Amino acid sequence: MKHIHFLNVEPHLVEGQDVKGVTMRVGITDSDGAPHFAMRLFQVQPNGYTPLHRHPWEHEVFVISGSGQLNYNDEEHSLQKGDFVLIEADALHQFKNIGPDEFQFICVIPHQSLLGKH
Amino acid sequence: MKHIHFLNVEPHLVEGQDVKGVTMRVGITDSDGAPHFAMRLFQVQPNGYTPLHRHPWEHEVFVISGSGQLNYNDEEHSLQKGDFVLIEADALHQFKNIGPDEFQFICVIPHQSLLGKH
Repeated sequence: MKHIHFLNVEPHLVEGQDVKGVTMRVGITDSDGAPHFAMRLFQVQPNGYTPLHRHPWEHEVFVISGSGQLNYNDEEHSLQKGDFVLIEADALHQFKNIGPDEFQFICVIPHQSLLGKH
Repeated sequence: MKHIHFLNVEPHLVEGQDVKGVTMRVGITDSDGAPHFAMRLFQVQPNGYTPLHRHPWEHEVFVISGSGQLNYNDEEHSLQKGDFVLIEADALHQFKNIGPDEFQFICVIPHQSLLGKH
């Protein structure tokens, strides 16, 4: 069992050339005993963005607060509090904060050991 | 890709003798193309509660709004907005709304086909 408020989870600044103003907090992961997937909270500052990238695993996202834009392959989607988003494996994707407040979302990913086991 | 606001996801009233005032919305699941896990939003009305039960799969939870209590085996935990909770497989658990407002949380579960594959 693990129970922790997100503000007590260590923040990691996401670094790289193609990222700005993004903090990740890994709330639940394999080292906590989670057998299948990890749950992370992302906080994106105004005008911040995650890398435009792709990878062979999915994201399941729920928007907690703020206003964002998701670039997904050749599409743009506006995101708001209360949205669910499934980002499929290998899709090109990027999140941007397009509002005045912090943009927060939960993002769940499978453990690497599960890939291909479905 | 799936993108939907939770209010546009069909609500299911959770029924049973040991449950009160609980609605589940399944935002992302296998029929959407999610390969490993399902993401659901639970809405618990004031004085409502989920069943006290156990099952051989885990929950990964993030609290969206309201005030709750988690009964977990022989323990009681107060829950608030912004809390992560890992409920391990086979743990006895129940969520209660102990506040005046709706208690909302995200709850992610593995597909049944994954159980034992880790």
